[in-house]
Amino acid sequence: MSKELEFHLKEAAERVNIALDALLPRPDGPEERLMRALRYSALDGGKRLRPFFTLEAGRMFDADETALLRTAVAIECVHTYSLIHDDLPCMDDDDLRRGRPTLHREFGEAMALLAGDALLTFAFEILADPATHRDPQMRCLLVSGLARAAGPLGMVAGQAADMEGGEISSDLIAMTRMNRLKTGCLINFSVDAGALIGIASDAEKLSLSRYAHDVGLAFQMVDDLLDAEGVVRDTGKAVKKDGARGKVNFVTVMGVEATRERVGMLAAQAKRHLMPFGPRARMLIDAVDFIITRRY
Amino acid sequence: MSKELEFHLKEAAERVNIALDALLPRPDGPEERLMRALRYSALDGGKRLRPFFTLEAGRMFDADETALLRTAVAIECVHTYSLIHDDLPCMDDDDLRRGRPTLHREFGEAMALLAGDALLTFAFEILADPATHRDPQMRCLLVSGLARAAGPLGMVAGQAADMEGGEISSDLIAMTRMNRLKTGCLINFSVDAGALIGIASDAEKLSLSRYAHDVGLAFQMVDDLLDAEGVVRDTGKAVKKDGARGKVNFVTVMGVEATRERVGMLAAQAKRHLMPFGPRARMLIDAVDFIITRRY
Repeated sequence: MSKELEFHLKEAAERVNIALDALLPRPDGPEERLMRALRYSALDGGKRLRPFFTLEAGRMFDADETALLRTAVAIECVHTYSLIHDDLPCMDDDDLRRGRPTLHREFGEAMALLAGDALLTFAFEILADPATHRDPQMRCLLVSGLARAAGPLGMVAGQAADMEGGEISSDLIAMTRMNRLKTGCLINFSVDAGALIGIASDAEKLSLSRYAHDVGLAFQMVDDLLDAEGVVRDTGKAVKKDGARGKVNFVTVMGVEATRERVGMLAAQAKRHLMPFGPRARMLIDAVDFIITRRY
Repeated sequence: MSKELEFHLKEAAERVNIALDALLPRPDGPEERLMRALRYSALDGGKRLRPFFTLEAGRMFDADETALLRTAVAIECVHTYSLIHDDLPCMDDDDLRRGRPTLHREFGEAMALLAGDALLTFAFEILADPATHRDPQMRCLLVSGLARAAGPLGMVAGQAADMEGGEISSDLIAMTRMNRLKTGCLINFSVDAGALIGIASDAEKLSLSRYAHDVGLAFQMVDDLLDAEGVVRDTGKAVKKDGARGKVNFVTVMGVEATRERVGMLAAQAKRHLMPFGPRARMLIDAVDFIITRRY
């Protein structure tokens, strides 16, 4: 990873952590446990890859930094909510997340359910706030975009498809679609939001959206490769879980070699989509290599 | 109940049912079970009291009917999501809702969790859509208002306080606060949204907001009275459950008589708040009597 990318990734994570800490309700009122639960999950040192995408995509068009940051925070709230609910016993029933007990293991199921609900709702409060962008039309577009990416025809549909499991995801096309919905939609919106706030042209938006599509899919395939390799120390979450549960994923369907090959193709294609932007797109291009070689 | 109120309540319910049916994703795609789950809960014949409030409050100011209806639908989506999650085993663990099996009894816990998440998200998609109101500033205010009413300092805080249970809610002030958050905030927003869309004056907004505050509290007290009386046939949900679980509510703390008295006082006060509006407020005033004498 280049020093510059390392710096930008770290900077994005730090800025998001500071903003989240400032925006989330303080844990000192009567609902102190709820607020602590929100913070336990939202401030747990995730990679903040989606915020990085929003910030870097927006910077290509000299977009307003506050608008980018607040949007990045809202997206991260939605991402965190999805992990909390996904870890619940009725879903993936995971005990470990980023090296610590999952929220429901630490605070109980009811509090985890509510903390997820709260973060999802809070994301829209952040976006609709005039502090996010002076133009209410832009704020509405951000709310719409996030709601579509996360809602019943986006991320939730992907989670439902994943839960229904078995036969539906055993063929590659259905599984690609499921992953596209489950993780791809939100990654796409994190890039698209940067272009939207930056008032990119339609052609520029399309190029970035295609980049996000390929990166999102490659990201998921790398996840499945890491799961298969069982790098528990690095990922900080339970591994080999898909295989153990009889769940299919890209690796169980295509095998390790074919999945690796596909990741390489997607990475190359993702970079090509950004060629029209020249050196402006350097960070997003460098991020592709980081994503496909990550060990966590 | 007056014939006119009966007509207005029925009309609000019918219009909301038609609009919900049109707006919710069709149950014919790959996520057919998720869509069926959404519809099972969202189209289950609830009273649609919150939509009634929005429509009637807005009509006092000749507000745009489409804006009112779409906002009412969004509010009802949030209300439905809250019932679905509240019924889950890790929360109230209820088997019955409006005379039918709860969503998780019918579709499983994972699908109920996801259907709730989807409805909450979808509510914001509806509000941010230009079809709701031509003015994006208004749409942002609606998104903000709903998010605040439902979020970590609103409804979710109330549910968390309810879960923490026991000592916190055994005194009347704490319990009033808990109910205010848990059900009051959303009832308040359903009235406030009508005034907002109708561009009411600040004084008018304040009067309506006070009305909603009192009605919301009276509504919850009547719920507790019905629970204590055990009118299972009429409510279509499990009753005497608070007592059986050792949970406190207004009746267990104040007793039946004092609760009834308090309901009467709140009802009278709620009506007084609407006096400045004269005959324009007739439906909202009549609704008070309906709410405090309801048997379900």
